[in-house]
Amino acid sequence: MTDASDVHILGVGTALPGAPVDNPTLAARLGLDTYWGQWIDHFVGTDTRHMSVDLDSGEVVSTLADLGETAARLALAAAGLGPDAVDLIVMGTATPDKLMPTTVNVVADRLGIDGVPTFQLQSGCTGAFQALAVASRLLVAGGPRTALVLGGDVGTKVFDYGADFSRLPPRELINYMLFGDGAGAAVLSVDPTPAAVTIRQVSTRLTGLGRAPGQSLDWFGARPPGPDSPTVAEDYKAIEELVPVMSEEILAELLADVGWKPGDVDYVLPPQLSGRMTTQIMERLALPGAQEVSCVRRTGNTGNATPFFQLERILDRMTSGDRAVGVSVESSKWIRAGFAVEKA
Amino acid sequence: MTDASDVHILGVGTALPGAPVDNPTLAARLGLDTYWGQWIDHFVGTDTRHMSVDLDSGEVVSTLADLGETAARLALAAAGLGPDAVDLIVMGTATPDKLMPTTVNVVADRLGIDGVPTFQLQSGCTGAFQALAVASRLLVAGGPRTALVLGGDVGTKVFDYGADFSRLPPRELINYMLFGDGAGAAVLSVDPTPAAVTIRQVSTRLTGLGRAPGQSLDWFGARPPGPDSPTVAEDYKAIEELVPVMSEEILAELLADVGWKPGDVDYVLPPQLSGRMTTQIMERLALPGAQEVSCVRRTGNTGNATPFFQLERILDRMTSGDRAVGVSVESSKWIRAGFAVEKA
Repeated sequence: MTDASDVHILGVGTALPGAPVDNPTLAARLGLDTYWGQWIDHFVGTDTRHMSVDLDSGEVVSTLADLGETAARLALAAAGLGPDAVDLIVMGTATPDKLMPTTVNVVADRLGIDGVPTFQLQSGCTGAFQALAVASRLLVAGGPRTALVLGGDVGTKVFDYGADFSRLPPRELINYMLFGDGAGAAVLSVDPTPAAVTIRQVSTRLTGLGRAPGQSLDWFGARPPGPDSPTVAEDYKAIEELVPVMSEEILAELLADVGWKPGDVDYVLPPQLSGRMTTQIMERLALPGAQEVSCVRRTGNTGNATPFFQLERILDRMTSGDRAVGVSVESSKWIRAGFAVEKA
Repeated sequence: MTDASDVHILGVGTALPGAPVDNPTLAARLGLDTYWGQWIDHFVGTDTRHMSVDLDSGEVVSTLADLGETAARLALAAAGLGPDAVDLIVMGTATPDKLMPTTVNVVADRLGIDGVPTFQLQSGCTGAFQALAVASRLLVAGGPRTALVLGGDVGTKVFDYGADFSRLPPRELINYMLFGDGAGAAVLSVDPTPAAVTIRQVSTRLTGLGRAPGQSLDWFGARPPGPDSPTVAEDYKAIEELVPVMSEEILAELLADVGWKPGDVDYVLPPQLSGRMTTQIMERLALPGAQEVSCVRRTGNTGNATPFFQLERILDRMTSGDRAVGVSVESSKWIRAGFAVEKA
């Protein structure tokens, strides 16, 4: 790696729609019994999530652009910068509001940003890592000095709360519990501030050769979908089996890349697929000296937004010399990703 | 710009589905009269396009992954490299086969590529420029040495050939004539070959501040769309007005960036929105010494694939010292883009 300069995270912001929705409320809304709510508590371990659709009325209360705009404004405020400082925007999402125009450009327009390169990645749970990787390497390559990085997902179009849930197979139903809506943003720059943390490494690698997708999310346009075309499907068992293994691989690779020992890590930001799986992954990562930074029990898996919620919680807590690692796995075609940040 | 090294285009490949479909055939299939076919000839100026759906049966004959895989294999063959040489993949599309897994990862899997960073941009007509920009700057930043860049679009889900076309407003109907399906690929590397051309500049800039979208493409999931939710809509008048102006702006900016005079340009690759608009744009670009490289009359506007079809036509023709510029405008939220390449 020929790093011409370091890239720093100056500030992070996040946004969640509406009030938290707990398992009994969601189970009741889906017409499922109390036993099912308890099953979710026990086997999934996610207590609440926020939703971009009002469960009573079915109305969309927040678009991805709404959440992205809020998160971006908070990140810029945390960085002490205005939108005019931004000369590159990179966003990751699996669930853009529309295919075109891209949500990143709608957010840019609302922030009053123009004349800069903007990129929107189509990405799953490692999307924030991919957006951070692209933005930080574009900053290293030179030209732009300060980038706004966004990530977020909304289930607005993915989930149909008018469906007959008693007919949904578990691989579809599970997603209603696992996922929550939200967005996050970070301001990256080659010009550090005293509060900034420095990015030591961001790596993302496809690791799906010959592997069946663990998750799929389909879209439909004018051509109506066939009767056997589920929008979303998840092989939770494959995910439960592979994600902890891949998390361990990422951590080892990341530590080797930056030359850190396990004992050097002060904070670990593990994958946030579910509360229960995060607990299992933490055991495998075996970083006894590191504090776990998780949000999944409260927010659900917010997909492309997740790492911003985790980063937000440590940014002000990190003191000089503190080191943090983030780990994530994308299960749709299997990408493993990690980042290492350090407070100078 | 702190270019650590030059990036070269080693080879290009393209793929089109099925046989060309001409205007009378398309008009007949859509139940529109002969007069309408003549109107398309005259006002749009696109003669044929290829389609990923068989017009008679309605069956999907090519997915975007199918076309991308073919284009990628041809680009690698043209570059004289195998898939094992690829250590970065960047793809641009407005119409991925699914939202997840991403099409770039499906293509990677089919090519046997694993363990490398892969990125899929959600992008419109400037998508190939955006993918080339991201890939070339990531190569400049160091780490990966050779990138596979892909772009393509398929109308498979966008268009419903079972619709009642007599009820479609012009802003929707026009798209059936303008767009064609296809994919393209290029192999980029910091390690040149004798046949390679060198990238002097790739620039993409959002230029949509306060401007209404000229085009929109929506997607739907499990939540059924409302009755007034068209999948695709186009403000052809706004596009006709703005694209030539922006094309002129891009060209001026690009020439200033690389220090070329208009007389230095040997080949110009103009936007390919329609045969008629390309002719208008060429007049405005005022590069009398440059050969126009267009494919739109034969392929229609293939969106993210277009620049690869144009590049393919000049790559073997360029001799030492030859210079080419490509220009494109994305009309959904207005991005202007350009590239400059030169044969060493």
